[in-house]
Amino acid sequence: MGYYSSSLSKIVLIGSGNVGFHLAQRFFEKKIQILQLFSRTETRAKTLAQQIQTSYTTDLNNINTNADLYMLAIRDDAISKVAQQLRTILPDNPLVVHTSGSTPSKIFADYFQRYGVFYPLQSFSVTRPANFEQIPICVDAANEKDLEKLENLAQIISPKVHRISDEQRAILHVAAVFVNNFSNHLFHIGESILEKEQLPFDLLRPLINETTAKIQNHRPKDMQTGPAIRNDKATIERHLKYLKLFPEFEKIYTVMTEGIKQEGERG
Amino acid sequence: MGYYSSSLSKIVLIGSGNVGFHLAQRFFEKKIQILQLFSRTETRAKTLAQQIQTSYTTDLNNINTNADLYMLAIRDDAISKVAQQLRTILPDNPLVVHTSGSTPSKIFADYFQRYGVFYPLQSFSVTRPANFEQIPICVDAANEKDLEKLENLAQIISPKVHRISDEQRAILHVAAVFVNNFSNHLFHIGESILEKEQLPFDLLRPLINETTAKIQNHRPKDMQTGPAIRNDKATIERHLKYLKLFPEFEKIYTVMTEGIKQEGERG
Repeated sequence: MGYYSSSLSKIVLIGSGNVGFHLAQRFFEKKIQILQLFSRTETRAKTLAQQIQTSYTTDLNNINTNADLYMLAIRDDAISKVAQQLRTILPDNPLVVHTSGSTPSKIFADYFQRYGVFYPLQSFSVTRPANFEQIPICVDAANEKDLEKLENLAQIISPKVHRISDEQRAILHVAAVFVNNFSNHLFHIGESILEKEQLPFDLLRPLINETTAKIQNHRPKDMQTGPAIRNDKATIERHLKYLKLFPEFEKIYTVMTEGIKQEGERG
Repeated sequence: MGYYSSSLSKIVLIGSGNVGFHLAQRFFEKKIQILQLFSRTETRAKTLAQQIQTSYTTDLNNINTNADLYMLAIRDDAISKVAQQLRTILPDNPLVVHTSGSTPSKIFADYFQRYGVFYPLQSFSVTRPANFEQIPICVDAANEKDLEKLENLAQIISPKVHRISDEQRAILHVAAVFVNNFSNHLFHIGESILEKEQLPFDLLRPLINETTAKIQNHRPKDMQTGPAIRNDKATIERHLKYLKLFPEFEKIYTVMTEGIKQEGERG
Protein backbone atom coordinates (compact mmCIF):
# COMPACT_ATOMS: atom_id res chain seq x y z
CA MET A 1 0.00 0.00 0.00
CA GLY A 2 1.34 3.38 -1.03
CA TYR A 3 4.53 1.67 -2.19
CA TYR A 4 5.51 2.22 -5.77
CA SER A 5 8.46 1.50 -7.98
CA SER A 6 9.18 3.05 -11.33
CA SER A 7 10.61 1.61 -14.49
CA LEU A 8 11.99 5.07 -15.20
CA SER A 9 15.13 4.66 -13.16
CA LYS A 10 17.58 6.61 -15.31
CA ILE A 11 16.54 10.24 -15.54
CA VAL A 12 18.36 13.12 -17.15
CA LEU A 13 17.08 16.37 -15.68
CA ILE A 14 17.43 19.40 -17.91
CA GLY A 15 17.20 22.68 -16.02
CA SER A 16 18.10 23.80 -12.50
CA GLY A 17 15.61 26.61 -12.01
CA ASN A 18 12.86 26.64 -9.38
CA VAL A 19 11.07 23.54 -10.67
CA GLY A 20 14.20 21.55 -11.55
CA PHE A 21 15.79 22.40 -8.22
CA HIS A 22 12.88 21.07 -6.17
CA LEU A 23 12.21 18.04 -8.37
CA ALA A 24 15.87 17.05 -8.19
CA GLN A 25 15.87 17.27 -4.39
CA ARG A 26 12.65 15.33 -4.11
CA PHE A 27 13.81 12.54 -6.45
CA PHE A 28 17.01 12.30 -4.44
CA GLU A 29 15.08 12.19 -1.17
CA LYS A 30 12.97 9.35 -2.58
CA LYS A 31 16.09 7.48 -3.77
CA ILE A 32 15.40 8.06 -7.46
CA GLN A 33 18.86 8.55 -8.94
CA ILE A 34 19.17 11.43 -11.35
CA LEU A 35 21.62 10.10 -13.92
CA GLN A 36 22.79 13.52 -15.01
CA LEU A 37 21.88 17.15 -14.61
CA PHE A 38 22.06 19.71 -17.40
CA SER A 39 22.02 23.43 -16.79
CA ARG A 40 23.37 26.36 -18.74
CA THR A 41 24.34 27.98 -15.45
CA GLU A 42 27.56 26.38 -14.23
CA THR A 43 27.34 27.45 -10.57
CA ARG A 44 23.74 26.32 -10.15
CA ALA A 45 24.38 23.04 -11.96
CA LYS A 46 27.43 22.34 -9.82
CA THR A 47 25.76 23.10 -6.50
CA LEU A 48 22.65 21.10 -7.28
CA ALA A 49 24.62 18.15 -8.72
CA GLN A 50 26.63 18.00 -5.51
CA GLN A 51 23.50 18.06 -3.40
CA ILE A 52 21.91 15.19 -5.27
CA GLN A 53 25.22 13.37 -5.77
CA THR A 54 25.24 13.23 -9.52
CA SER A 55 27.21 14.55 -12.48
CA TYR A 56 26.31 17.60 -14.50
CA THR A 57 27.05 19.22 -17.84
CA THR A 58 26.52 22.70 -19.22
CA ASP A 59 26.83 21.50 -22.81
CA LEU A 60 23.81 19.78 -24.31
CA ASN A 61 26.12 17.83 -26.64
CA ASN A 62 27.59 16.05 -23.63
CA ILE A 63 24.25 14.80 -22.45
CA ASN A 64 24.00 11.14 -21.43
CA THR A 65 22.20 9.35 -24.24
CA ASN A 66 21.27 6.21 -22.26
CA ALA A 67 18.52 7.57 -20.03
CA ASP A 68 14.94 6.25 -19.74
CA LEU A 69 13.57 9.72 -19.39
CA TYR A 70 14.60 13.26 -20.37
CA MET A 71 12.81 15.77 -18.17
CA LEU A 72 12.87 19.39 -19.34
CA ALA A 73 12.34 21.77 -16.40
CA ILE A 74 13.10 24.90 -18.38
CA ARG A 75 11.43 28.13 -19.48
CA ASP A 76 8.33 27.63 -21.64
CA ASP A 77 9.86 29.51 -24.53
CA ALA A 78 13.00 27.34 -24.54
CA ILE A 79 11.24 23.95 -24.70
CA SER A 80 10.88 23.77 -28.46
CA LYS A 81 14.48 24.78 -29.15
CA VAL A 82 15.95 22.33 -26.64
CA ALA A 83 13.70 19.54 -27.99
CA GLN A 84 14.99 20.21 -31.47
CA GLN A 85 18.61 20.04 -30.28
CA LEU A 86 17.95 16.87 -28.28
CA ARG A 87 16.49 15.26 -31.39
CA THR A 88 19.86 15.52 -33.11
CA ILE A 89 21.72 14.13 -30.08
CA LEU A 90 19.56 11.33 -28.68
CA PRO A 91 19.21 7.85 -30.19
CA ASP A 92 16.00 6.70 -31.81
CA ASN A 93 13.17 6.53 -29.34
CA PRO A 94 13.68 8.43 -26.08
CA LEU A 95 10.88 9.48 -23.71
CA VAL A 96 10.90 13.26 -23.33
CA VAL A 97 8.67 15.30 -21.00
CA HIS A 98 8.45 18.87 -19.81
CA THR A 99 7.24 20.24 -16.47
CA SER A 100 5.29 23.22 -17.77
CA GLY A 101 1.70 24.08 -16.90
CA SER A 102 1.07 26.18 -19.96
CA THR A 103 2.82 24.29 -22.76
CA PRO A 104 1.03 21.50 -24.68
CA SER A 105 2.79 18.14 -24.80
CA LYS A 106 2.21 18.31 -28.57
CA ILE A 107 5.13 20.73 -28.72
CA PHE A 108 7.30 17.58 -28.83
CA ALA A 109 5.37 15.86 -31.62
CA ASP A 110 7.61 17.21 -34.38
CA TYR A 111 10.69 15.71 -32.77
CA PHE A 112 9.75 12.59 -30.81
CA GLN A 113 7.23 9.78 -30.79
CA ARG A 114 7.32 9.22 -27.05
CA TYR A 115 6.63 12.38 -25.12
CA GLY A 116 4.59 13.70 -22.26
CA VAL A 117 4.20 16.06 -19.33
CA PHE A 118 5.23 15.87 -15.70
CA TYR A 119 3.75 19.04 -14.18
CA PRO A 120 3.94 19.67 -10.44
CA LEU A 121 1.14 22.16 -9.75
CA GLN A 122 2.86 24.52 -7.35
CA SER A 123 4.58 27.89 -7.34
CA PHE A 124 8.17 27.05 -6.43
CA SER A 125 10.90 29.31 -5.09
CA VAL A 126 14.44 28.15 -4.48
CA THR A 127 14.33 29.93 -1.12
CA ARG A 128 11.33 27.98 0.20
CA PRO A 129 11.12 24.25 0.90
CA ALA A 130 8.55 22.37 -1.20
CA ASN A 131 6.14 19.99 0.47
CA PHE A 132 5.55 17.32 -2.17
CA GLU A 133 3.07 15.49 0.06
CA GLN A 134 0.73 18.39 -0.81
CA ILE A 135 1.72 19.02 -4.42
CA PRO A 136 -0.49 17.58 -7.18
CA ILE A 137 1.49 16.14 -10.10
CA CYS A 138 -0.29 16.25 -13.45
CA VAL A 139 0.93 13.67 -15.94
CA ASP A 140 0.20 13.09 -19.59
CA ALA A 141 1.84 11.10 -22.40
CA ALA A 142 1.42 10.29 -26.06
CA ASN A 143 0.89 6.59 -25.31
CA GLU A 144 -0.68 4.64 -22.47
CA LYS A 145 2.44 2.70 -21.56
CA ASP A 146 4.53 5.82 -21.04
CA LEU A 147 1.65 7.44 -19.20
CA GLU A 148 1.63 4.56 -16.74
CA LYS A 149 5.37 4.87 -16.28
CA LEU A 150 5.14 8.58 -15.61
CA GLU A 151 2.24 8.01 -13.27
CA ASN A 152 4.29 5.48 -11.31
CA LEU A 153 7.23 7.84 -11.14
CA ALA A 154 5.00 10.69 -9.94
CA GLN A 155 3.45 8.49 -7.26
CA ILE A 156 6.87 7.99 -5.74
CA ILE A 157 7.23 11.70 -5.04
CA SER A 158 3.61 12.73 -4.36
CA PRO A 159 0.40 11.04 -3.19
CA LYS A 160 -1.61 13.34 -5.46
CA VAL A 161 -1.14 12.26 -9.06
CA HIS A 162 -3.66 13.17 -11.76
CA ARG A 163 -3.92 12.30 -15.44
CA ILE A 164 -4.53 15.65 -17.06
CA SER A 165 -4.77 16.16 -20.82
CA ASP A 166 -3.17 19.08 -22.68
CA GLU A 167 -6.53 20.78 -22.90
CA GLN A 168 -7.33 20.32 -19.22
CA ARG A 169 -3.88 21.49 -18.21
CA ALA A 170 -4.24 24.67 -20.27
CA ILE A 171 -7.44 25.44 -18.40
CA LEU A 172 -5.91 24.49 -15.06
CA HIS A 173 -3.18 26.98 -15.82
CA VAL A 174 -5.68 29.79 -16.40
CA ALA A 175 -7.29 28.96 -13.05
CA ALA A 176 -3.86 28.87 -11.40
CA VAL A 177 -3.11 32.36 -12.68
CA PHE A 178 -6.29 33.65 -11.01
CA VAL A 179 -5.67 32.05 -7.62
CA ASN A 180 -1.91 32.55 -7.52
CA ASN A 181 -0.63 35.48 -9.61
CA PHE A 182 -3.74 37.60 -9.27
CA SER A 183 -4.19 36.98 -5.53
CA ASN A 184 -0.57 37.87 -5.03
CA HIS A 185 -1.20 41.13 -6.88
CA LEU A 186 -4.10 41.88 -4.54
CA PHE A 187 -1.75 41.33 -1.60
CA HIS A 188 0.64 43.76 -3.23
CA ILE A 189 -2.16 46.30 -3.57
CA GLY A 190 -3.01 45.87 0.10
CA GLU A 191 0.60 46.52 1.00
CA SER A 192 0.82 49.55 -1.31
CA ILE A 193 -2.26 51.15 0.22
CA LEU A 194 -0.96 50.62 3.74
CA GLU A 195 2.50 51.86 2.78
CA LYS A 196 1.09 55.16 1.65
CA GLU A 197 -0.40 55.57 5.13
CA GLN A 198 2.76 54.28 6.80
CA LEU A 199 0.87 51.34 8.26
CA PRO A 200 2.69 47.99 8.50
CA PHE A 201 1.67 45.16 6.12
CA ASP A 202 1.75 42.89 9.18
CA LEU A 203 -1.69 44.27 10.02
CA LEU A 204 -3.06 42.35 7.02
CA ARG A 205 -1.01 39.17 7.08
CA PRO A 206 -3.22 37.33 9.62
CA LEU A 207 -6.30 38.26 7.58
CA ILE A 208 -4.69 36.88 4.41
CA ASN A 209 -3.80 33.70 6.27
CA GLU A 210 -7.35 33.23 7.44
CA THR A 211 -8.82 33.97 3.99
CA THR A 212 -6.84 31.03 2.63
CA ALA A 213 -7.26 28.75 5.62
CA LYS A 214 -11.03 29.06 5.31
CA ILE A 215 -11.20 27.69 1.79
CA GLN A 216 -9.09 24.63 2.59
CA ASN A 217 -12.30 22.91 3.64
CA HIS A 218 -15.01 25.25 2.39
CA ARG A 219 -16.09 26.49 -1.01
CA PRO A 220 -14.88 30.08 -1.57
CA LYS A 221 -18.38 31.02 -2.67
CA ASP A 222 -19.73 30.19 0.79
CA MET A 223 -17.02 32.19 2.53
CA GLN A 224 -17.57 35.52 0.78
CA THR A 225 -18.09 38.57 3.02
CA GLY A 226 -17.65 42.32 2.64
CA PRO A 227 -19.39 45.30 1.05
CA ALA A 228 -19.75 43.83 -2.46
CA ILE A 229 -21.65 40.68 -1.50
CA ARG A 230 -23.81 42.75 0.91
CA ASN A 231 -24.30 45.31 -1.85
CA ASP A 232 -23.38 47.96 0.73
CA LYS A 233 -23.40 50.93 -1.62
CA ALA A 234 -22.33 53.53 0.93
CA THR A 235 -19.15 51.66 1.81
CA ILE A 236 -18.35 50.89 -1.84
CA GLU A 237 -18.72 54.58 -2.71
CA ARG A 238 -16.48 55.60 0.16
CA HIS A 239 -13.85 53.13 -0.98
CA LEU A 240 -14.03 54.27 -4.60
CA LYS A 241 -13.68 57.88 -3.49
CA TYR A 242 -10.51 57.04 -1.58
CA LEU A 243 -9.16 54.98 -4.48
CA LYS A 244 -9.09 58.03 -6.74
CA LEU A 245 -5.56 58.24 -5.35
CA PHE A 246 -4.74 54.92 -7.10
CA PRO A 247 -6.43 54.82 -10.51
CA GLU A 248 -5.17 51.29 -11.35
CA PHE A 249 -6.44 49.93 -8.05
CA GLU A 250 -9.77 51.67 -8.60
CA LYS A 251 -10.26 49.75 -11.85
CA ILE A 252 -9.59 46.47 -10.12
CA TYR A 253 -11.90 47.41 -7.23
CA THR A 254 -14.68 48.14 -9.71
CA VAL A 255 -14.51 44.92 -11.73
CA MET A 256 -14.01 42.73 -8.66
CA THR A 257 -16.95 44.37 -6.86
CA GLU A 258 -19.09 43.90 -9.97
CA GLY A 259 -18.04 40.24 -10.18
CA ILE A 260 -18.87 39.54 -6.53
CA LYS A 261 -22.25 41.31 -6.84
CA GLN A 262 -23.16 39.23 -9.90
CA GLU A 263 -22.10 36.11 -8.07
CA GLY A 264 -24.31 37.15 -5.14
CA GLU A 265 -27.30 37.70 -7.41
CA ARG A 266 -26.77 34.32 -9.03
CA GLY A 267 -26.92 32.88 -5.49
CA MET B 1 5.91 40.95 31.21
CA GLY B 2 2.98 40.54 28.87
CA TYR B 3 0.68 40.70 31.88
CA TYR B 4 -2.01 43.32 31.73
CA SER B 5 -5.04 44.28 33.73
CA SER B 6 -7.85 46.48 32.58
CA SER B 7 -9.94 49.03 34.39
CA LEU B 8 -12.77 48.11 32.05
CA SER B 9 -14.00 45.16 34.05
CA LYS B 10 -17.73 45.47 33.51
CA ILE B 11 -18.57 45.04 29.86
CA VAL B 12 -21.97 44.86 28.21
CA LEU B 13 -21.60 43.19 24.83
CA ILE B 14 -24.22 44.10 22.27
CA GLY B 15 -24.47 41.61 19.42
CA SER B 16 -23.86 37.87 19.08
CA GLY B 17 -22.88 37.67 15.41
CA ASN B 18 -19.48 36.48 14.14
CA VAL B 19 -17.49 39.23 15.85
CA GLY B 20 -19.49 39.28 19.10
CA PHE B 21 -19.38 35.52 19.34
CA HIS B 22 -15.59 35.30 19.12
CA LEU B 23 -14.92 38.36 21.29
CA ALA B 24 -17.22 36.99 23.98
CA GLN B 25 -15.40 33.63 23.97
CA ARG B 26 -12.01 35.28 24.05
CA PHE B 27 -12.91 37.62 26.93
CA PHE B 28 -14.25 34.65 28.84
CA GLU B 29 -11.11 32.64 28.14
CA LYS B 30 -9.02 35.53 29.45
CA LYS B 31 -11.23 35.83 32.56
CA ILE B 32 -12.78 39.12 31.55
CA GLN B 33 -16.33 38.88 32.80
CA ILE B 34 -18.98 40.00 30.34
CA LEU B 35 -21.56 41.59 32.60
CA GLN B 36 -24.41 41.09 30.18
CA LEU B 37 -25.03 40.08 26.61
CA PHE B 38 -27.60 41.67 24.35
CA SER B 39 -28.83 40.10 21.15
CA ARG B 40 -32.05 40.39 19.22
CA THR B 41 -31.82 36.67 18.45
CA GLU B 42 -33.01 34.76 21.54
CA THR B 43 -31.44 31.38 20.67
CA ARG B 44 -28.03 32.81 19.85
CA ALA B 45 -28.05 35.05 22.91
CA LYS B 46 -29.02 32.17 25.17
CA THR B 47 -26.42 29.74 23.83
CA LEU B 48 -23.61 32.25 23.94
CA ALA B 49 -24.60 33.56 27.39
CA GLN B 50 -24.48 30.01 28.73
CA GLN B 51 -21.07 29.44 27.20
CA ILE B 52 -19.59 32.53 28.78
CA GLN B 53 -21.61 32.13 31.98
CA THR B 54 -23.44 35.42 31.94
CA SER B 55 -26.95 36.79 31.63
CA TYR B 56 -28.56 38.04 28.47
CA THR B 57 -31.43 40.14 27.27
CA THR B 58 -33.16 40.57 23.94
CA ASP B 59 -34.69 43.89 24.96
CA LEU B 60 -32.42 46.91 24.84
CA ASN B 61 -34.54 48.54 27.58
CA ASN B 62 -33.41 45.83 30.00
CA ILE B 63 -29.78 46.56 29.47
CA ASN B 64 -27.55 46.81 32.54
CA THR B 65 -26.83 50.52 33.07
CA ASN B 66 -23.83 50.06 35.39
CA ALA B 67 -21.20 48.87 32.93
CA ASP B 68 -17.79 50.48 32.31
CA LEU B 69 -18.01 49.74 28.62
CA TYR B 70 -20.73 49.16 26.05
CA MET B 71 -19.33 47.26 23.08
CA LEU B 72 -21.45 47.20 19.93
CA ALA B 73 -20.58 44.20 17.75
CA ILE B 74 -23.44 44.71 15.32
CA ARG B 75 -24.06 45.41 11.64
CA ASP B 76 -22.56 48.70 10.43
CA ASP B 77 -25.94 50.04 9.41
CA ALA B 78 -27.45 49.37 12.87
CA ILE B 79 -24.78 51.20 14.91
CA SER B 80 -26.30 54.66 14.69
CA LYS B 81 -29.80 53.49 15.60
CA VAL B 82 -28.65 51.42 18.57
CA ALA B 83 -26.45 54.30 19.78
CA GLN B 84 -29.44 56.60 19.69
CA GLN B 85 -31.53 54.15 21.70
CA LEU B 86 -28.73 53.59 24.21
CA ARG B 87 -28.47 57.33 24.70
CA THR B 88 -32.03 57.39 26.11
CA ILE B 89 -31.37 54.41 28.39
CA LEU B 90 -27.87 54.86 29.79
CA PRO B 91 -26.91 57.30 32.56
CA ASP B 92 -24.79 60.36 31.87
CA ASN B 93 -21.33 59.42 30.70
CA PRO B 94 -20.88 55.84 29.44
CA LEU B 95 -18.00 54.65 27.27
CA VAL B 96 -19.40 53.23 24.03
CA VAL B 97 -17.40 51.54 21.27
CA HIS B 98 -18.11 49.58 18.13
CA THR B 99 -16.10 46.79 16.51
CA SER B 100 -16.50 47.86 12.88
CA GLY B 101 -13.68 48.34 10.41
CA SER B 102 -15.60 50.62 8.12
CA THR B 103 -17.55 52.88 10.47
CA PRO B 104 -15.96 56.06 11.89
CA SER B 105 -15.96 56.41 15.66
CA LYS B 106 -17.48 59.87 15.07
CA ILE B 107 -20.79 58.12 14.43
CA PHE B 108 -21.18 58.21 18.23
CA ALA B 109 -20.39 61.92 18.58
CA ASP B 110 -24.04 63.01 18.44
CA TYR B 111 -24.96 60.78 21.37
CA PHE B 112 -21.97 60.36 23.65
CA GLN B 113 -18.88 62.19 24.84
CA ARG B 114 -16.85 59.07 25.55
CA TYR B 115 -16.67 56.78 22.56
CA GLY B 116 -14.24 54.76 20.52
CA VAL B 117 -13.48 51.71 18.44
CA PHE B 118 -12.36 48.20 19.29
CA TYR B 119 -11.79 46.57 15.91
CA PRO B 120 -10.33 43.07 15.63
CA LEU B 121 -8.89 42.92 12.11
CA GLN B 122 -9.99 39.46 11.07
CA SER B 123 -12.68 37.78 9.01
CA PHE B 124 -14.62 35.76 11.58
CA SER B 125 -16.97 32.83 11.07
CA VAL B 126 -18.89 31.18 13.87
CA THR B 127 -17.87 27.80 12.45
CA ARG B 128 -14.10 28.44 12.70
CA PRO B 129 -12.05 29.00 15.85
CA ALA B 130 -10.35 32.41 16.07
CA ASN B 131 -6.69 32.64 17.00
CA PHE B 132 -6.47 35.94 18.87
CA GLU B 133 -2.71 35.56 19.32
CA GLN B 134 -2.55 36.45 15.61
CA ILE B 135 -5.37 38.97 15.38
CA PRO B 136 -4.47 42.67 15.38
CA ILE B 137 -6.83 44.79 17.46
CA CYS B 138 -7.20 48.40 16.31
CA VAL B 139 -8.29 50.80 19.03
CA ASP B 140 -9.33 54.42 18.98
CA ALA B 141 -11.14 56.74 21.37
CA ALA B 142 -12.33 60.33 21.69
CA ASN B 143 -10.02 60.95 24.66
CA GLU B 144 -6.60 59.70 25.70
CA LYS B 145 -7.71 58.20 28.98
CA ASP B 146 -10.32 55.99 27.36
CA LEU B 147 -7.90 55.10 24.61
CA GLU B 148 -5.46 53.80 27.22
CA LYS B 149 -8.21 51.79 28.85
CA LEU B 150 -9.24 50.23 25.54
CA GLU B 151 -5.63 49.55 24.71
CA ASN B 152 -5.15 47.76 28.01
CA LEU B 153 -8.28 45.72 27.45
CA ALA B 154 -7.18 44.79 23.95
CA GLN B 155 -3.75 43.73 25.20
CA ILE B 156 -5.39 41.17 27.43
CA ILE B 157 -6.85 39.34 24.44
CA SER B 158 -4.17 39.95 21.76
CA PRO B 159 -0.44 40.74 21.66
CA LYS B 160 -1.01 42.90 18.57
CA VAL B 161 -2.71 46.11 19.56
CA HIS B 162 -2.53 49.22 17.37
CA ARG B 163 -3.78 52.77 17.80
CA ILE B 164 -5.54 53.44 14.52
CA SER B 165 -7.44 56.66 13.78
CA ASP B 166 -10.79 56.77 11.99
CA GLU B 167 -9.04 57.84 8.81
CA GLN B 168 -6.41 55.11 8.98
CA ARG B 169 -9.02 52.48 9.75
CA ALA B 170 -11.09 53.49 6.73
CA ILE B 171 -8.03 52.96 4.55
CA LEU B 172 -7.13 49.72 6.29
CA HIS B 173 -10.63 48.54 5.49
CA VAL B 174 -10.19 49.26 1.78
CA ALA B 175 -6.94 47.27 1.83
CA ALA B 176 -8.67 44.44 3.73
CA VAL B 177 -11.34 44.23 1.03
CA PHE B 178 -8.62 43.73 -1.60
CA VAL B 179 -6.73 41.01 0.26
CA ASN B 180 -9.73 39.22 1.74
CA ASN B 181 -12.96 39.64 -0.25
CA PHE B 182 -11.31 40.03 -3.64
CA SER B 183 -8.83 37.16 -3.16
CA ASN B 184 -11.69 34.98 -2.08
CA HIS B 185 -13.50 35.89 -5.30
CA LEU B 186 -10.43 34.85 -7.29
CA PHE B 187 -10.50 31.50 -5.48
CA HIS B 188 -14.15 31.22 -6.46
CA ILE B 189 -13.25 31.94 -10.09
CA GLY B 190 -10.57 29.24 -9.96
CA GLU B 191 -13.13 26.80 -8.66
CA SER B 192 -15.72 27.80 -11.29
CA ILE B 193 -13.27 27.30 -14.16
CA LEU B 194 -12.27 23.87 -12.86
CA GLU B 195 -15.89 22.92 -12.24
CA LYS B 196 -16.76 23.52 -15.86
CA GLU B 197 -14.02 21.03 -16.79
CA GLN B 198 -15.06 18.63 -14.02
CA LEU B 199 -11.68 19.00 -12.35
CA PRO B 200 -11.58 19.02 -8.53
CA PHE B 201 -10.83 22.31 -6.71
CA ASP B 202 -8.41 20.30 -4.56
CA LEU B 203 -5.94 20.60 -7.43
CA LEU B 204 -5.62 24.31 -6.61
CA ARG B 205 -5.83 24.33 -2.82
CA PRO B 206 -2.12 23.57 -2.23
CA LEU B 207 -1.17 26.35 -4.66
CA ILE B 208 -3.42 28.80 -2.83
CA ASN B 209 -1.85 27.77 0.46
CA GLU B 210 1.63 28.36 -0.86
CA THR B 211 0.71 31.73 -2.40
CA THR B 212 -0.28 32.93 1.05
CA ALA B 213 2.48 31.19 2.97
CA LYS B 214 5.07 32.93 0.80
CA ILE B 215 4.00 36.42 1.73
CA GLN B 216 4.05 35.75 5.47
CA ASN B 217 7.73 36.67 5.39
CA HIS B 218 8.21 38.19 1.95
CA ARG B 219 6.82 41.20 0.16
CA PRO B 220 4.12 40.15 -2.35
CA LYS B 221 5.84 42.28 -4.98
CA ASP B 222 8.95 40.10 -4.77
CA MET B 223 6.93 36.88 -5.05
CA GLN B 224 5.10 37.68 -8.30
CA THR B 225 5.36 35.08 -11.08
CA GLY B 226 3.29 34.13 -14.12
CA PRO B 227 2.58 35.36 -17.65
CA ALA B 228 1.69 38.97 -16.73
CA ILE B 229 4.93 39.83 -14.92
CA ARG B 230 6.92 38.06 -17.67
CA ASN B 231 4.84 39.92 -20.25
CA ASP B 232 4.35 36.54 -21.95
CA LYS B 233 1.94 37.71 -24.64
CA ALA B 234 1.35 34.30 -26.27
CA THR B 235 0.14 32.77 -22.98
CA ILE B 236 -1.97 35.81 -22.10
CA GLU B 237 -3.66 35.66 -25.51
CA ARG B 238 -4.34 31.95 -25.14
CA HIS B 239 -5.88 32.58 -21.73
CA LEU B 240 -8.05 35.43 -22.99
CA LYS B 241 -9.25 33.30 -25.87
CA TYR B 242 -10.34 30.58 -23.46
CA LEU B 243 -11.96 33.12 -21.14
CA LYS B 244 -14.43 34.16 -23.85
CA LEU B 245 -16.50 31.43 -22.19
CA PHE B 246 -16.62 33.53 -19.00
CA PRO B 247 -17.01 37.22 -19.94
CA GLU B 248 -16.93 38.45 -16.31
CA PHE B 249 -13.74 36.53 -15.58
CA GLU B 250 -12.22 37.87 -18.79
CA LYS B 251 -12.69 41.44 -17.54
CA ILE B 252 -10.97 40.61 -14.27
CA TYR B 253 -8.16 38.81 -16.11
CA THR B 254 -7.59 41.88 -18.26
CA VAL B 255 -7.38 44.49 -15.50
CA MET B 256 -5.32 42.27 -13.20
CA THR B 257 -2.86 41.46 -15.99
CA GLU B 258 -2.63 45.16 -16.82
CA GLY B 259 -2.01 45.96 -13.15
CA ILE B 260 0.75 43.37 -12.78
CA LYS B 261 2.42 44.51 -16.01
CA GLN B 262 2.44 48.13 -14.83
CA GLU B 263 3.85 47.02 -11.51
CA GLY B 264 6.56 45.10 -13.36
CA GLU B 265 7.48 48.14 -15.44
CA ARG B 266 7.64 50.29 -12.34
CA GLY B 267 10.14 47.70 -11.02
